[in-house]
Amino acid sequence: MDEDQFRKAAHSAIEEIISYRRSLPSRRVLSTVQPGYLAPQLPPSIPTEPEPWDAIQPDIDKLIVPGLTHWASPNFMAFFPAHSTYASMLGELYSAAFSAPAFNWLCSPAITELETVVLDWVAKAMALPESFWSKGEGGGVVQGSASEAVVTVMVAARERMINRLTEGLEGKEKEAKVAEVRGRLVALGSEHSHSATHKGAIIAGTHFRIIPASKETGFAMTGEAVERVIKECEKDGLIPYYLTATLGTTSTCAVDDFEGIKETLRRCGKDAWVHVDAAYAGAALVCEEYQHLSKQLEGMDSFDFNMHKWLLTNFDASCLYVRHRTSLTSVLSITPPFLRNQFSDHGLVTDYRDWQIPLGRRFRAIKIWFVLRAYGLSGLQSHIRRTVKLGQYFHSLVQSRADLFGVVSGPQFALTVVTIKPLPPTARAVQNELTRKVYETVNKRGEVYLTNTVVGGVYAIRVVGANPTTQEEHLRRCWEVLVEVGDEVRGEMPPGGGAR
Amino acid sequence: MDEDQFRKAAHSAIEEIISYRRSLPSRRVLSTVQPGYLAPQLPPSIPTEPEPWDAIQPDIDKLIVPGLTHWASPNFMAFFPAHSTYASMLGELYSAAFSAPAFNWLCSPAITELETVVLDWVAKAMALPESFWSKGEGGGVVQGSASEAVVTVMVAARERMINRLTEGLEGKEKEAKVAEVRGRLVALGSEHSHSATHKGAIIAGTHFRIIPASKETGFAMTGEAVERVIKECEKDGLIPYYLTATLGTTSTCAVDDFEGIKETLRRCGKDAWVHVDAAYAGAALVCEEYQHLSKQLEGMDSFDFNMHKWLLTNFDASCLYVRHRTSLTSVLSITPPFLRNQFSDHGLVTDYRDWQIPLGRRFRAIKIWFVLRAYGLSGLQSHIRRTVKLGQYFHSLVQSRADLFGVVSGPQFALTVVTIKPLPPTARAVQNELTRKVYETVNKRGEVYLTNTVVGGVYAIRVVGANPTTQEEHLRRCWEVLVEVGDEVRGEMPPGGGAR
Repeated sequence: MDEDQFRKAAHSAIEEIISYRRSLPSRRVLSTVQPGYLAPQLPPSIPTEPEPWDAIQPDIDKLIVPGLTHWASPNFMAFFPAHSTYASMLGELYSAAFSAPAFNWLCSPAITELETVVLDWVAKAMALPESFWSKGEGGGVVQGSASEAVVTVMVAARERMINRLTEGLEGKEKEAKVAEVRGRLVALGSEHSHSATHKGAIIAGTHFRIIPASKETGFAMTGEAVERVIKECEKDGLIPYYLTATLGTTSTCAVDDFEGIKETLRRCGKDAWVHVDAAYAGAALVCEEYQHLSKQLEGMDSFDFNMHKWLLTNFDASCLYVRHRTSLTSVLSITPPFLRNQFSDHGLVTDYRDWQIPLGRRFRAIKIWFVLRAYGLSGLQSHIRRTVKLGQYFHSLVQSRADLFGVVSGPQFALTVVTIKPLPPTARAVQNELTRKVYETVNKRGEVYLTNTVVGGVYAIRVVGANPTTQEEHLRRCWEVLVEVGDEVRGEMPPGGGAR
Repeated sequence: MDEDQFRKAAHSAIEEIISYRRSLPSRRVLSTVQPGYLAPQLPPSIPTEPEPWDAIQPDIDKLIVPGLTHWASPNFMAFFPAHSTYASMLGELYSAAFSAPAFNWLCSPAITELETVVLDWVAKAMALPESFWSKGEGGGVVQGSASEAVVTVMVAARERMINRLTEGLEGKEKEAKVAEVRGRLVALGSEHSHSATHKGAIIAGTHFRIIPASKETGFAMTGEAVERVIKECEKDGLIPYYLTATLGTTSTCAVDDFEGIKETLRRCGKDAWVHVDAAYAGAALVCEEYQHLSKQLEGMDSFDFNMHKWLLTNFDASCLYVRHRTSLTSVLSITPPFLRNQFSDHGLVTDYRDWQIPLGRRFRAIKIWFVLRAYGLSGLQSHIRRTVKLGQYFHSLVQSRADLFGVVSGPQFALTVVTIKPLPPTARAVQNELTRKVYETVNKRGEVYLTNTVVGGVYAIRVVGANPTTQEEHLRRCWEVLVEVGDEVRGEMPPGGGAR
């Protein structure tokens, strides 16, 4: 593809993208393709001869678009949003054009330095503790996802604890102690922490224990609950080395009791690494009204949130901040001759490869830079406030039919979690079954896409409409669909609400 | 940024990208910026108000481009190439527009299914053993990098070995045995394996031992060397669970003795996981003349190569193939309620999140699809053959001045590794010092960018000119620079070649 062909192809791609995005409100948000739909429509192997763009492009609309779940649709209210904006797309385009596996500073100084700058910008805008800014001993790094960030800090936490408990030992004695400690390490997370913590514990090769967080505390993990589990662990000979605290849990957007947790760890004399996973809700910290939470991050070992969820940047752009960057670099730095250079050797520069699991890394800072500038802080704030308000609006709709739906939690960071109310009231198992039926029927209709959860034994439906294009009308329509299906499902309920 | 603003901005970005790439041959390949150049040129925080594209775009050329290392330059001959092509950039653009953290099938069926199709296409084109195709028990997955792939399979290998050695045990007994085995596991790699294996062992929390691979075997790891180290490990009570074998080592593009290694493992009765890291050179397998190596992959547990190095796709696109996909999914699958759906529950579909460390994943298959179609198999092959020939051409130039430079290895997969020849011949330390001086002087001049290595105690310079725009003239100019600097450095050598 030469320059002229590229220009022509790119112009055509841009028109297609504009028209795709314009079409989103009228598209069914969930795809209707069946498993295995694609392969039979494609040739069995790479074409022998080059194909012109004119032959390739039509297949996108014909074969790919029908198989997409439209995350950018205003009717996508499932999981958490995964934004993509025009500013951010331009960033990806430049990133691809400037392609470099920018593992160290010298491999493209601009890639490293812009990353440091934009992460400091974001830290400042969010009023994160200064210990997370690059000017001191901490700093930020862009990771691919919040789950990758969790694994990264868990490995650092594991090694920090092993080092502390084997300090001063040497040779065989040290080796034996390391093996013993390793076998006793346990990572902790609340029952509402993202599954990434459990998976991270598997990858790090340690135990994992769950800390209960019940309805009574709004599904937030408390210091007392942490203390109880720590004591159980100790009784069982386990050493807690890591804890995920969450700012905005996946199920209900609960915020754990950070101050209580810190107090517990201080009192217990435990120096487990505390990571704050704010994957989705962290974005709200750009607004002053949420910055009391930023203050509570003081003393935490690490904090991570995704610009690629609620902050107008396309996947991937997960911003991880650590209090001591050496806690990452001392574990993750390996320097063979071909990675050595005068700048790195003299400690003059940041080599982000030592802050992450993979060696290579993409130029992700440029799209973050574009987004921050194209929206401005005021634009970011009004986006968050507007979507938080949409959540409140949806909640008010639910309350208007308190006979049909009950609120399990929210509105919290634009998320409301609901169940159907059986008539007459009945056993929870039956209620769960009805809610499940409502959930499945709504998604089958495909006009909106929602996800489910189970909290405190209650099967519930999550509604979070926080895309830039989502308006009141979309939440109202979502609500109408829920009411229609809710009435229908409840109408089918056998008299007495017994087994179905 | 609305549609019209995006259209205008994107058109302008495309012109800038075209003109950037056109300018590459005349640009100094290495940036001259000093550490910390960028931050003082940028405001200290996010602008309060939105900025128009007209205000943002000029800063790219003014602030970012001067800080880039131009990996796409025809004069970039360092590390391994990291391609980026117009076809691939278009893929990134669509990927950003269709943004989805496509962790499971339902989250965008097209993203999953296209990935399976293109990886099968590539497997077929490379004549990989059918055990790596998706139709049987194996299959491919796109990872971010070869180093991420290494960690992923190491974790799977670790758990496989632990499971095998604790089979049938239960409760406390099992727990104790798991801890004991965990402390004794050792990963193996040759001294020329990529540092990712060492780093992977740290992340996986296991021991790591190096297998020597000397000049006598062309820096390739042999079955005998593996056997010796395995025996030493056993003497020390360690259990080898994983081995990286390399197809194209970083230093010299050596190919380990796959058949010898497999034979050793069979004979020793060891069931360590063997991963073949073909990050760079694997791309050559699209040509029949290299496919005798594909045959030797039969029986290997996994194989990985990067389309984003030598195969015309921008970073990231690392293709990992495994023989038994359950060896990944049984370890890496965690399914909380919000990730459950009828398709995954019934095992009808592939959920690639269970094949990798992070949960979310980008739509990387679309750029691979574009590249495979835009070049066609014949285009991929002629690209590889053309650049292999460039390596041979460079080697012939080196031979023409056998008095000045010696060949340490190559030409192998377009890579030639050279040292300067001191006159008169002198101690190796002095020779190393002279080569180092040549290397540093060449990079300081910045007309070409090369990297160094140390093999068998010899300090050497790697030259690999394999970008799509690299031509004979660029390798000839690189050679002229080397000769100029080599003559100069050797001329400064004190009589007798003694200490300098």
